[in-house]
Amino acid sequence: MTPRDEPVIVAPATPPGTSALAIVRLSGKDAIAVAQKVFVGKNLMEQASHTLHLGLIKDDDTVIDEVVVSLFHAPHSFTMENSVEISCHGSPVIVQRILTALIKHGATLAAPGEFTKRAFLHGRFDLAQAEAVADLINAETDNARQAALNQMRGGFSKEIKRLREELIHFASLIELELDFGEEDVEFAKRDDLRKLIGSIQSFIATLLASFRQGNVIKNGVPTVIAGRPNAGKSTLLNLLLQEEKAIVSDIPGTTRDVIEDEMVLGGVNFRFIDTAGLRDTTDTIEAIGVGRTREQLKKASLILYLVDLTNTTLAEIQDELDKLDALKIPVIRIGNKIDKADPVFVSQLKPFGFILLSATEKTNLAGLEKEILDRFHIDTVRQGDVILTNARHVESLTATRDALDRVLSGMDGGVTGDFLAMDVRNALHHLGLITGQISTEDLLGNIFSRFCIGK
Amino acid sequence: MTPRDEPVIVAPATPPGTSALAIVRLSGKDAIAVAQKVFVGKNLMEQASHTLHLGLIKDDDTVIDEVVVSLFHAPHSFTMENSVEISCHGSPVIVQRILTALIKHGATLAAPGEFTKRAFLHGRFDLAQAEAVADLINAETDNARQAALNQMRGGFSKEIKRLREELIHFASLIELELDFGEEDVEFAKRDDLRKLIGSIQSFIATLLASFRQGNVIKNGVPTVIAGRPNAGKSTLLNLLLQEEKAIVSDIPGTTRDVIEDEMVLGGVNFRFIDTAGLRDTTDTIEAIGVGRTREQLKKASLILYLVDLTNTTLAEIQDELDKLDALKIPVIRIGNKIDKADPVFVSQLKPFGFILLSATEKTNLAGLEKEILDRFHIDTVRQGDVILTNARHVESLTATRDALDRVLSGMDGGVTGDFLAMDVRNALHHLGLITGQISTEDLLGNIFSRFCIGK
Repeated sequence: MTPRDEPVIVAPATPPGTSALAIVRLSGKDAIAVAQKVFVGKNLMEQASHTLHLGLIKDDDTVIDEVVVSLFHAPHSFTMENSVEISCHGSPVIVQRILTALIKHGATLAAPGEFTKRAFLHGRFDLAQAEAVADLINAETDNARQAALNQMRGGFSKEIKRLREELIHFASLIELELDFGEEDVEFAKRDDLRKLIGSIQSFIATLLASFRQGNVIKNGVPTVIAGRPNAGKSTLLNLLLQEEKAIVSDIPGTTRDVIEDEMVLGGVNFRFIDTAGLRDTTDTIEAIGVGRTREQLKKASLILYLVDLTNTTLAEIQDELDKLDALKIPVIRIGNKIDKADPVFVSQLKPFGFILLSATEKTNLAGLEKEILDRFHIDTVRQGDVILTNARHVESLTATRDALDRVLSGMDGGVTGDFLAMDVRNALHHLGLITGQISTEDLLGNIFSRFCIGK
Repeated sequence: MTPRDEPVIVAPATPPGTSALAIVRLSGKDAIAVAQKVFVGKNLMEQASHTLHLGLIKDDDTVIDEVVVSLFHAPHSFTMENSVEISCHGSPVIVQRILTALIKHGATLAAPGEFTKRAFLHGRFDLAQAEAVADLINAETDNARQAALNQMRGGFSKEIKRLREELIHFASLIELELDFGEEDVEFAKRDDLRKLIGSIQSFIATLLASFRQGNVIKNGVPTVIAGRPNAGKSTLLNLLLQEEKAIVSDIPGTTRDVIEDEMVLGGVNFRFIDTAGLRDTTDTIEAIGVGRTREQLKKASLILYLVDLTNTTLAEIQDELDKLDALKIPVIRIGNKIDKADPVFVSQLKPFGFILLSATEKTNLAGLEKEILDRFHIDTVRQGDVILTNARHVESLTATRDALDRVLSGMDGGVTGDFLAMDVRNALHHLGLITGQISTEDLLGNIFSRFCIGK
């Protein structure tokens, strides 16, 4: 069975929920034939690619809905297979009935990521680009969108492929030398190899360096607000969220589900970790010693540590700061209720670098935001910027770098060609994993199973 | 400004959320021109209707996404205006950026229901059909879907229009008689008028009779589970819900958001009213006397009254049943924990008609479901069935019927033509409101403002 003969898969391509339209998508050699079996209207088999057709979807003799059908002929579709998109009224009941009818007529419900996996298998794009499709959908900020789009539209793929081909050339030459055994020939010019490895290492170093920002861009900053009961944690959270909610919800109905307990500041998504577990205990800082809570805090990339300036002693603060320091997570220290605090006490806090504010009175929120931005500043992602955002790529690039380091030190130490060849092949393997020029069912399963159904 | 010159409106047509695809829809005379301003690809202005085009959406110089654009030329679109659907990656961030870019280039964010309102104003369908579009989207059961689809595809509209035209004919004749003043001519044959009114009345009676089922089909049955603490209310609810959840979630991901605290039984949607207010009080039955709780119970169309057979006295039951009877809402009486109950006590309950079961042991759930179905049986809605589901239509049909009754009794009493004419015109007015042949901005605003944005 060639890839294009794969069975017809079907899935909803739009989110569940009530809306004007919903889309059910089919892909596979016989996608149009399967659609035709439930469609009343023109003969879809005779229509051109990239055309739209009004008609009815029927299940046996029952009309399910009036729809518009989009046709895409192979290879001019997302999957590069024949594809059909059925645009129906946006009711989950209708979507389910259409799916049921199509499955009855030979379609199979798609596995998560199966459409994108087929697109990859048919050569529409490489593996790093396929992964970017999921990143694009899951983008929660405009920076994340742009970084994913850049990767989807090529990103570092072309450069990796070019460098890998040059390296393959050297691998072949070295292996050719091995065939000549004792004759001590040198087809692969060692200086040229060094030069190539140098440029690959420098390319990898630049990419790896971009991951510090890439990770923040893609995954946001998991943030915990810690502090004793009544320090003002909820007031501060609401203050931070509301300021931002007003901005992101300019256009109603589009982003409501994205901004729950999240705020975008300076193009970075700060996700507030549910500290319900923390709130259950009488003292969140004491609770750091408790296993489950400690785990939650460890997931954080930022702790906003909030102190009630009106009823905490210096000794208590010192004690709590020591406990937080032990976690080795960035902490921003905030003194709340400055409007009611004793100035003498406040002056004693100076050495600790507290941001002083009143969450209730909404004073100095700007000071806190500036501090957060100073710690998590990212440059706005521009078109064409190549930024590493994927931990899997970091792993492969690091392994590539290490293998190439071994090649270099091997040459310095005068190791034999067969050892060199082994390390070069190892580097090629890891480079190839990024773009999927080398892939296993396990790797693909692992990547695409994290996609949503319908993508 | 003719309707076709209305400004270009834009809105997302798919639900917010993360998915393979999202659709942003434009409509208006210049819809294609506005889309062209943000599109990089073929010149959309030169493309045929009902064609699909791959390209990029740009905001200034930034590529926002790779998209597929669908073109619909007036009048061959839902709104009968030029329309464009932009199918982008399903990220709220992308949808928002595309909306922003289009608004920057002259589009206006659509009001709720504005697409359907334009379709109505341009004569694509009548008002009752337009209302059915919203019902179709909001359908929570297959019966509701079929009833809405039948109405959208014509339903009673054609018959109402035909009867109304005949009645207009008579109204004109009667008014013509008035012009002749004292001459005592009779252009409108009274016997024919009686016959026409008879057939209109019989048509209206059939429609109104269908509303009892139509209302259950469209709105479901708001249901409250009442009973003392520990009677087993939550256990019973979970039992009822889980049985059904297993069925409706055969296909994952499509209906998840629909079945929260709802169950479909015999094609009817039973919606369980949140009785949090009830649970706050120590005794839900006692609480019936309390204002807020009483209001919640009054919203119910069905009360499942649950008694713990192991620790309630006959006197208590009698007392509680009296209180429930006073509400005048159908009550199904359920005796729970039958597995642990005293048989003598249970035999004393016989006259009260309790369904006996154990929610924990899952015994006799079938008996309860049968009782519910006996009370709320509906016939499966078939293609072409005309069922009244809309309270507004009930109102107008009732007013029409009353006006026609006055015409009939007027003729019997020998009233003058001018009074007859007034009542006939009144009947025509109310009939016309249903199909929108008579409409006011208020009426339209009221109807379409309840639609979602994008529809």
